[in-house]
This record gives sequence, structure tokens and C-alpha cells, in this order.
Amino acid sequence: MLVKFKRFLIGRPMKSTELAAEKLTKRKALAVLSSDALSSVAYGTEQILMVLMAVGVAALWYSIPISFAVLLLLAILILSYRQIIYRYPSGGGAYLVSKENLGVPFGLLAGGSLLVDYILTVAVSASAGTDAITSAFPALHDDRVLIAVVMIGALTLLNLRGVTESASILAYPVYLFVGAIGLLIVCGLFQIVTGQAQATTPEYGTSVPGLTLFLLLKAFSSGCSALTGVEAVSNAIPSFKRPAEKNAATTLLMMGLILGSMFLGISVLAYCFGIVPNGRETVVSQLASSVFGRGTVYYAVQSVTALILFLAANTAFAAFPVLAFMLAKDRYLPNMFTVRGDRLGFSNGIIMLGCLSALLIVLFHGHTENLIPLYAIGVFIPFTLSQTGMMRMWLRSKPSGWLLPFLINTIGMLTTLTITLIFICTKFSQVWLVFLFLPLAIWVFLQIQRHYQSMAGELQIDLAHDKPYQKGTVIVIPVAGITRVVRNSISYATSLTDQVVAVYVGFDEEEIATMERRWAEWNPGVRLIILRSHYRSIVRPLIKFIDTVGWKAAETDHVTVLIPQFITKRWWHNILHNQTSFLIRTYLFARRDVTVTTVPYHLHQ
Amino acid sequence: MLVKFKRFLIGRPMKSTELAAEKLTKRKALAVLSSDALSSVAYGTEQILMVLMAVGVAALWYSIPISFAVLLLLAILILSYRQIIYRYPSGGGAYLVSKENLGVPFGLLAGGSLLVDYILTVAVSASAGTDAITSAFPALHDDRVLIAVVMIGALTLLNLRGVTESASILAYPVYLFVGAIGLLIVCGLFQIVTGQAQATTPEYGTSVPGLTLFLLLKAFSSGCSALTGVEAVSNAIPSFKRPAEKNAATTLLMMGLILGSMFLGISVLAYCFGIVPNGRETVVSQLASSVFGRGTVYYAVQSVTALILFLAANTAFAAFPVLAFMLAKDRYLPNMFTVRGDRLGFSNGIIMLGCLSALLIVLFHGHTENLIPLYAIGVFIPFTLSQTGMMRMWLRSKPSGWLLPFLINTIGMLTTLTITLIFICTKFSQVWLVFLFLPLAIWVFLQIQRHYQSMAGELQIDLAHDKPYQKGTVIVIPVAGITRVVRNSISYATSLTDQVVAVYVGFDEEEIATMERRWAEWNPGVRLIILRSHYRSIVRPLIKFIDTVGWKAAETDHVTVLIPQFITKRWWHNILHNQTSFLIRTYLFARRDVTVTTVPYHLHQ
Repeated sequence: MLVKFKRFLIGRPMKSTELAAEKLTKRKALAVLSSDALSSVAYGTEQILMVLMAVGVAALWYSIPISFAVLLLLAILILSYRQIIYRYPSGGGAYLVSKENLGVPFGLLAGGSLLVDYILTVAVSASAGTDAITSAFPALHDDRVLIAVVMIGALTLLNLRGVTESASILAYPVYLFVGAIGLLIVCGLFQIVTGQAQATTPEYGTSVPGLTLFLLLKAFSSGCSALTGVEAVSNAIPSFKRPAEKNAATTLLMMGLILGSMFLGISVLAYCFGIVPNGRETVVSQLASSVFGRGTVYYAVQSVTALILFLAANTAFAAFPVLAFMLAKDRYLPNMFTVRGDRLGFSNGIIMLGCLSALLIVLFHGHTENLIPLYAIGVFIPFTLSQTGMMRMWLRSKPSGWLLPFLINTIGMLTTLTITLIFICTKFSQVWLVFLFLPLAIWVFLQIQRHYQSMAGELQIDLAHDKPYQKGTVIVIPVAGITRVVRNSISYATSLTDQVVAVYVGFDEEEIATMERRWAEWNPGVRLIILRSHYRSIVRPLIKFIDTVGWKAAETDHVTVLIPQFITKRWWHNILHNQTSFLIRTYLFARRDVTVTTVPYHLHQ
Repeated sequence: MLVKFKRFLIGRPMKSTELAAEKLTKRKALAVLSSDALSSVAYGTEQILMVLMAVGVAALWYSIPISFAVLLLLAILILSYRQIIYRYPSGGGAYLVSKENLGVPFGLLAGGSLLVDYILTVAVSASAGTDAITSAFPALHDDRVLIAVVMIGALTLLNLRGVTESASILAYPVYLFVGAIGLLIVCGLFQIVTGQAQATTPEYGTSVPGLTLFLLLKAFSSGCSALTGVEAVSNAIPSFKRPAEKNAATTLLMMGLILGSMFLGISVLAYCFGIVPNGRETVVSQLASSVFGRGTVYYAVQSVTALILFLAANTAFAAFPVLAFMLAKDRYLPNMFTVRGDRLGFSNGIIMLGCLSALLIVLFHGHTENLIPLYAIGVFIPFTLSQTGMMRMWLRSKPSGWLLPFLINTIGMLTTLTITLIFICTKFSQVWLVFLFLPLAIWVFLQIQRHYQSMAGELQIDLAHDKPYQKGTVIVIPVAGITRVVRNSISYATSLTDQVVAVYVGFDEEEIATMERRWAEWNPGVRLIILRSHYRSIVRPLIKFIDTVGWKAAETDHVTVLIPQFITKRWWHNILHNQTSFLIRTYLFARRDVTVTTVPYHLHQ
């Protein structure tokens, strides 16, 4: 039943050889990998305006020069990342680059930041998407959490189905979004040029009292949240069709161009239309209703924006499991992240990401605005580390013509480092959690690796000398009465060994006497031992008895406990049975030297 | 680790013989069993006023005659329930009385209503308690759900600790609450008599246009929500100290007197102080701030009210597990509800109640006002059924002097039936869910019973002829490499039988060749079978292989699969291991004829 349901949800299993067919073309890659970066324009401008509003409406014109600064930074980042793509065609981005060039701790720092960052991407994008919906339909405002969580659930399922299928689905909304924002910008500019736009625009270039450098830097760093997601392409090179590096570099450039023009367009429009940010309606929503009026086109823009934001979360769903796989392959994360699922995706990573981000949404009641700075710093730390790693790499290997790329990476490093520092200085109250969490994450990574290593040593065998050896076996069968199930268990046990005892836990003398009489009458050839329980607990006296047997027989015998398990005809019948079996099994699993054997009994009813 | 934590939370296990010491004195019983009924005064009057407000402030004077009608009903109920207490000293209340006198379906109807009702009691009381807190501290309004859920969690733990200990804790707040409301009423009345109360009271006896009989009946039925919880005493007679019936009857009478005077007092005060109900502050909170001002005494009254409302939920925690036990003993609910926990309470029932009521709180965002009608009708259905059952019983047995109690029960039945009908007529839009849910619950009860009965038939054994029989055994050991764990498993298997095969699932030819070579070098005396997996799934080819073995050997042999289980040194190491073992075991448990043996391997690291 469950298996069928799973099939229905995530599709038929796929062969490993089908993996090649799952590779991405440039067009599809742009769709899958750029939705995170592109969707940032839905909140990037807003973040700048919100900081400037702290001084007043008159300061809003500063958003234009700040936007240009962000654009410049974008250009630097794109150039730097193109270097990384060509040098590290196997993907891995910041984690791999930092680990190889700066050493394991820095690699783990980059890896840890990125993992956290992907979780935040999903949470922030899903709740920003929900904002786009509730801006259009204010009545839904109370169901924010529910909407966001349902969308995350849908994305998780989509990704469990596999990469290409989701890519096909994802291609349309991304291009629709680019089209919609493009239309918005063109129509908006047209209205401005023709003078149709009637808005009380704050005058450009007025000096604003009270506007400090600190505030400008803060606004700039807020605007940098529009650059999150740029690294996605460089992490996913192995997913590209050949020639992978070239395709990836081209895709990255295209993405940069689209992102830059959309971001600048929205900033200019927001200024010209005199948009003032408020907590109830997003800037894009205000723009769209100014340009198009609250009609069909407005709702189309809003729904496409919501869609792209939900899909932005999808970028993280593509990147998180791959990064978790790489960390797990290096033994820094549990082994389960290395296993590919039925549909060739790393199912455990996908499920983990879905659960953690949904948890964040619930914890923050869907108000994840406060997470945006945390999210941005989570991106800029690995940005800085990977640029530093590249610098180190150029310096060490010095291939021909290394100076130009070295310079590009140096400029990139300095810029991203500066922004990281600005972030820490201007928004410490919002990002301090990172400085607690990242060291903790690195410590956990190292602990996990240490554990796996020492275990591998412990399990190693000397092929020449460590051979299997034989012992006797004592089998203990807990019985609750005389039924077909007991007969079944005793048949199995006596087939294996002569040393079989049945154990009955009784609560009062009357039922104990009845049991003894009936057992004698049945005479199954197995001794019955009676335990008296004063605590109504069946499990405790049983465990005590098994411990005693183990203590007496450990030298010569294996001790095995036989537990019957009802195989019910319908899955919900399990609620009616197997509770005690489950309890005993759980207790025994924690024991050192007891083997637990589960003998099935098939119920026909 | 977990066991110790459990001990810390719920205390040391107790012997069955300690049960007698857990019996309740009258004073303690009043505390444990009456908090539900008494706390109803915190919202009873408010419910009446809210209905009357639909017409206008002028209609509020009707709350006084309506309150007297509710009081009359209370008197009738108390008298009727005293009859039940003396006739059914074993407790069980509505379920038992209805089942014995009206037949199984009516018994299940009463039982089902009560179970639902107890869940609603917890949800409604916890959120009403939260209202009392947020009336005093409006800043906490956004954390309603959290506060309510935390309180339910605390109550669940308290009840897992056991009956008497919770009773000792509970005795004080109940008496404090009675004291606080008494003080409020006395001071309020004093202020009215001395003319200190300055309020614009709606004039008593003015005729109000637009006030229909329908609305009056609706207000009356709303007021009846103050009577919920009255049945608790009659369900819990076995928990009383001897003479149980007499003590229970006295406790019931005391409770009725206290409840009646508090309810009437608050209604009169609310009228005299001209309190108008609103959604932000409770009526009791308004009264307390009018009488005492918003000072220390006000906050004391509010906190005691909050406390008593949380403890009202405790009545349900005492009653739900007992009722679930009775239904499970009659095989209408899963067996697990019959098992007493370490601390002599029915742990499963307590945990179930906690979870379901917390779920309701979360689903309704803590706004459970809408549940109050549902809750009230859930009480009045079993009220009516048990009175009818009593009537039938008197008619059938006709002991000497049966006429008076018969008359009392008849009047009780007619009144509660009328109120049930009023509820259905005036609040159908809020209570229709009951008419879907109750038939469904009865159907489920009957299905469960049918399943258990047919299973008992299936498992029955003929002691003379059905003896155990012997067969051979084939043991299959899945291996992932050559380690100490594998050596351990093979040692165990070869100790039992000669028919042992090891199975290795390989993904590529290279690793398969290495494995075959090393196996030959090790030569453990067991054949290695190689399975090639094209789907990266380890489980699927394994299951297929085991099915084939089972199909070939089923006639002559048991098929056993050996699964190694790492016993880790720290519990969280489990996250790092055992994932594949768990998966294989889960798949195999659903198979018909495969025995699963878990061989422990103790990790030292």
C-alpha cells in the first residue's frame, strides 16, 4: 500500500545508467540554477529601501547609486566565479575550493555556511513567495505558514521525482518571470518617458540630514541580498551537458546579465514611481499595481513572482543534497547522504532540507524577513573563502597567464570580504547566531569523521586469522498464552537447537496456575518458566531473566530471543497488535549480547 | 539515557499493590474531579451574554432569569447522577449504564461522545486558561498556541506521574479559585449594596424588540456549557476511598452547591456592573478589574482562574484513560489502552489525550471558542443516554421504593433531551460535525471488536493435536564487505545450521571483483552470492533474492535473514549507522514467511 503510494508520488525507479540522460542543457540549467538568483530581485530593492526609510522618504533616492554599487559587485562575482568553473569542473564550489587550497577547517566552514544557507534559501524564498500571494490576496494573510509549508512539501516531492522532470516543469516559470518583470520595466519606463507616471518622487540628489555612512553601508549590504544564489551554477557543473565548463560559464554570464538588468530596472522604477516600502505589500506588488492597475496583468505578475520565489527554493533543493553527498563522502556527515534514491536524486538530503526549512517557517511564523541578513552572510562567507582559495591556488601553481585571473579573484575576495565585514558591523544583532552555529557545525563534522575513522579501524579484519567460530545457542521464547503463534515460534526454535525455554510473565496466581496446567496438558517438549511481575510490566522481568540467562551461558552459547510478529492483512491492523513485541524488541536492541529473532505469523483476518 | 530521562520526568515505577494507597479522599476528589465543572463558571456567563449581545445591550438583563434556569437544570442533574452513583458503584458512568440497559450501540454512542468530549475539555480549558492569561497580559496574545500546548504537555507529564501526586498538587488551586471567586462575589455585592458600583446597568425587565424565543433558547443552551464536567464524579467512583458510593455522592453534592453559587454570583455581578462581553477581555477579567482595579488582587484572580482552567483539563486526564480502558477491555479499542504504565496510570490513554488535544489547539490556532458548543453537546448526549438507561433499569428491576428515583431520572432525561434538541436546533451550524463523527466512531469500535474476535478464533489451538513440528533452516546473510561484523554474523549462523549463504549487492564490476577475490582469500566456509544492482538500491535485489530462496525452500526449510545491528556507545551514533539495516528489516517485516534475526555488534567507539 505504502509502496504503491510512494510510486504514485515519486514515479517508477530509474536505472543508474539513466543518470547521463538527466544532464542539463544550457536552457534548462538557466531555469533550474538561476531561479534563486533571479528571484532575489523580488526583495533586493525592497531591502535597500527599508533601510533608507529609517531616515525618511527624502533618502530614498540613494537607492539608485547603491543599486549601481550592487551591480558592480555582481560583475566582479560573475568574473570570479567563471574562474572557479574552469578550474574546478567537477563542481563543489566553495567547499571543494576552500578545502583543497586552505585546508580542511576552512573547507568545513564554507561547507557548513552553505548548508545553512540552502536551508535559509528555502525558508526565505517560500515565505517571500507567500508574501507575493498575500500582497495580492490580503485575506490569506493568516494562512501564511500553511501556504509556505505546503509549497515546501510540493517542492520536496518534485525533487524526489528527479532532476530533469523538475527542470522541465521549472523552465516555463523562470522565463515567464523574466518576461513579466521585463514587461513591467518596459511599460514602467514608457510611462515615465511619456510622463504618464504621476508620483511624488523624492528629489534626486537632495542632501538628507541624519544619513550616515553607516546607514548607507547598511543599505548597500542589504541590497547585496539580491546576489544570493549566484554561486549555484559553479556548484552544479557535473550536472551540465558536455562541454560542461563552457556551458556552465555561458549560463553564469547569461544569468548575470538578466539579473543585473532586472535589479537595476526595478530600483529605477521604484524610485521614479515614488514607491515607499511597507510591511503589508511588497515593493514589486506596489510597482505592478502602479504600472498596470490592479487588474489581470497585475495578478499575472504577482502569481509569476510567487511561482519564481517558490522555485528559487528549488535551487537549494538541487544544491543541498549534492553538497551533503560531498561532505558525507569525506565522512563529515552520516553515510545515509551518499545513497541515491529510486529516482537518482539523493533522497535523504532532499527530505532533510524540506523538513528543516519547513521547521524554520513554522518557528518564525512565516515572518522570515529577519532571516534575510543571516542568509546573506551565509552566502558571503563561502564567497570570500572560495576567492581566497583561488588566489592561493594561482600563487601555488602559477600556470601561464595566471596574473589576470589572480587579480580578478583578489578583487573579488577583497570586495566580498568587505561586504562580509560590513554585514557583521551593521547587522550584528541579526547575524550573531552564525558565530555560534558555524563553530558548532565544524565541531560536529569533525566528530562524525573521527567516529567513522575509529570504527573502520575497529571493524578491520585479518583475513588470514580472524575466521568464524561456532558456539551453542539458547533460545528464549516469551509466551502470553497457548496459541498458534506460540506453536509456530516453538516449531522454529526446536528446529534450530534443543536448548529452548518458554517464559510466561504472570500478574496473579490464578492465571499462572491455569497457564501451568494448560502447558502441561499441551506438552510441547519445551520447558515453561514462570515469572511473577509486581509492576504490571511484562518487559522488565523478561529483560532481567534474559540478562541472567546471558550471564550464565555467554561463554558457551549465543542467547537468542524469539519474538512473534503478526503480519496483518491491512496495515492499520498493526495498531491493534505488535505493541508488546515492539516494546520488547526496542529494549533488547539496546542489549549487548542478545540476538533478537522475529518470527512472522500471518493473520488471515 | 532515555530511560533515566523518563525516570526523572515521571518518577520511579510503582508496584501494583500500591494502587490502593492511590485512592482519593473526599477533599482530594473534589479537587481532582470538580475542576472541570467549577472552571466552567469562567466562561458560562460569558457564553450567555455573547448570545444576548446579538440583540443589544438592553437584552443583557435576560442573563439573570436564564442563569436561574441553568441552576435548576444543575439541581436536576445532580439528583439524577446521585442515583447513578448508588446503582453503579463500579463507575463507568454513561458508557456502562447505556450499554447495560439500552444495548451495545447506545453504550458505544455514549462512550464515543465522552471520549470526544474529554479531548475537547482539554482543548477548550487550555485555551480558555490562555485567554485568562492574555486578558491580563495582552502582549502575550501572539503566543496563545504555544502557551496552551506547553500547559497540555505539563499536564500530560503530571498525569504520567500518577493520580495521587497530581491530586496533591491540584488541591490548592481549586480551593484558591473557589476562594478568589468567592472574594470577588462578596466584594462585588458589597460594592453594589453600598452603592460604590458605578456602572450603566441595562434596566431589568425592559422589553427588548427583536429578542425571539429562539435567541433566548440559544442563550440558555449556551449557558448550559457551565454544566459540563458534572458527570466526572460518577465515572470515577472506584478511585474513591471506602465507602466509595457515599463519598462520591457527597462530593457530587458539594460540587453542585459550589458551582451553583459561583455561577449565579458571577451572572448577577456581570449584570449589576454592566459588563459587556468583547473578544479581547474575558467577562471575569472585566469583573475583577471593575471590583478590584487592575492591581495585585486582579492579577491574583486572573492567575488563579488560568490555573483552574488548566487543571480543568486535568479532569479529562483522569477520566479519558479509564473510559478508554473500559472500551479496550470490551475489545472496542486497541489492546494497548488496557496496559497500566510504570506509575499505575494508563499511560497510553494519557499520552493519546495529550496529543489529540494539542493537535486541536494547533489546528484551531488556539481559538477554541467555536468548540464550546460541540463540547457541550458531547456532554448532553451521554447525559440523556444515561438517564434513559436508568429509567429502563428501574422499570425492569423495580426494587422497593423505585418510583421516586425513576421520576427523578425521567425528569432528568426529559430536561437533558430538551437541551440536546435546543442545541441541535439553535446551533446546528456549529455542531453538525458530531453527527458525522459519532456514527463513524461507533463503526470503528465495532470493526475493532470484530477483528479481535475473529483473530482469537484464528489463533485458537487444539491442545491435543496441534503440536510443534521441526523443519530445516536456510540462513541468508547480507554482507557489505569483510569486517568483524560479518565474521560475527557468520559465526552465529554456522552455529545454528550448515545451510548458510552470504549475499553481496554490487554496483560496479570492479568492486564486485575485489569482493570475490577477498572472500576467496578469507574463505569463511560460507558461499558468497553476488547480486548486481542497476538501481543503486541495496534492498530491492536482496528482497528478490530472498523471495526466490523462500519459494524454493519453503516446503522443507524456514528461511531466516541475518541482519547485523550496531550497538553504539552513545545513542546519537545511531544516526551514523544502522540505516540500511533498518530499511531491510522494515521491508522484510512485511513479508510472509521470512524470519528476521538481528545480531548485535557492540561498537567500542
